[in-house]
Amino acid sequence: MREFLAAAESAADLAGAVIRPLFRSALLVEAKGDASPVTAADQQAEQAIRAFLAGRFPDHGIWGEEYGADRPDAEWLWLLDPIDGTRAFVTGRPLFGTLISLLHKGVPVLGLIDQPATGERWLGLAGEPTRFRGPMGGVAQCRPCAELAQAELSCTSPDMFLEDQRDGFDRLRGAARRVTWGGDCYAYGLMALGLVDVIAEATMKPWDWAALVPVVQGAGGSVTDWAGRQLTVESDGSVLALGDPAMLAEATALLR
Amino acid sequence: MREFLAAAESAADLAGAVIRPLFRSALLVEAKGDASPVTAADQQAEQAIRAFLAGRFPDHGIWGEEYGADRPDAEWLWLLDPIDGTRAFVTGRPLFGTLISLLHKGVPVLGLIDQPATGERWLGLAGEPTRFRGPMGGVAQCRPCAELAQAELSCTSPDMFLEDQRDGFDRLRGAARRVTWGGDCYAYGLMALGLVDVIAEATMKPWDWAALVPVVQGAGGSVTDWAGRQLTVESDGSVLALGDPAMLAEATALLR
Repeated sequence: MREFLAAAESAADLAGAVIRPLFRSALLVEAKGDASPVTAADQQAEQAIRAFLAGRFPDHGIWGEEYGADRPDAEWLWLLDPIDGTRAFVTGRPLFGTLISLLHKGVPVLGLIDQPATGERWLGLAGEPTRFRGPMGGVAQCRPCAELAQAELSCTSPDMFLEDQRDGFDRLRGAARRVTWGGDCYAYGLMALGLVDVIAEATMKPWDWAALVPVVQGAGGSVTDWAGRQLTVESDGSVLALGDPAMLAEATALLR
Repeated sequence: MREFLAAAESAADLAGAVIRPLFRSALLVEAKGDASPVTAADQQAEQAIRAFLAGRFPDHGIWGEEYGADRPDAEWLWLLDPIDGTRAFVTGRPLFGTLISLLHKGVPVLGLIDQPATGERWLGLAGEPTRFRGPMGGVAQCRPCAELAQAELSCTSPDMFLEDQRDGFDRLRGAARRVTWGGDCYAYGLMALGLVDVIAEATMKPWDWAALVPVVQGAGGSVTDWAGRQLTVESDGSVLALGDPAMLAEATALLR
């Protein structure tokens, strides 16, 4: 696994080197909300990562948001989302991230959240404590929070839910202490630093959530679907992350 | 005004020195959503700024969120919000900011937005181009955007509106190209970098908006209430910021 971890870090370095010059670039300003500059950054970064990983691990599968899947049935499968949080990227917010994960027989065993703009990086390996480094401080350990009434809830957008998920989210939100909007993958990193207690999101793809699982779990938290089941590539896209898994029964009852 | 600008920068430096050690501190993690650590940071930073400005300009008034107003009827009045975006601060997001402004006979003539965590700073002086510096790049110039249909809309939270403001915001939102949630004062800074086109918010206090006015205006944009009127300390707390003032009639008609 050391070899895979080092490769994931190099891949994230490559992606960051492609993405940073495009963040807040004149191209982005001129495009005025057009998707093309962020798509260009996404595509160039994914190409760089894919070429690197394919050279290092020719037997592994690779599945990225922009270029689909090569060998998706391989024992080891890399999942890539070069720019998670395209809305943040387009509007100049430094909270977008690069997500790289490695699945072994469908289970995420390595997850990396990299923030090219802020210089922060979370690394999760199954069965090991999550590692974190960054210039603004933080310790990779979820905090205790046994009850939703005490919990900081985070969610990227009130618009991300399917029609039949809104009531469940509203119940969860009513039970939580407070809600903060925005965040994308960054919110899961903050959970792993003990600063956010609950995240409930929906319509997530495997490359959106796979890297988050080892990061949050390795800091003491849990990541499941809204029914409390382990996430798989067949999951329904709902994601429930808890800094303190003691809240699982309370949260899933409300989301049901 | 040079003297006032230098003082505002020093005051922001002082505030940042107080705030940075508390951001993501163990105290914040342990408090688990409690307001006290952010209140402590807010209070200590405001004390530092007030002591400094009172020593430099004994005839000026000072009005801060935490400690109220001294000489609010003075010709020159400093407005302070040491931590704008307390939800961001509490949950570890680096987007909270320190706001310092100077009003001359009720009109904001100097505005400073400082981001202690990201190291970015916007400086606005009435009648001068906005200055910006920071490690992630950006040029202080709003971009052209004559129609809402092309506009990036930003808003801190869907929960900040009064009951009779919701319909107006929903109409504006329906006309805009897209909405991004979260941001507090940072969104106005991004508008001044040409990355956000419209911001509509409500229930804002004078210390929340006064620093933003010279920053956005100095980059070519406009800041008014939802009716398009100049903001004053008697304003109703609604704020409409436009990167391109050509949208003013369209936006105010929808918000009415």
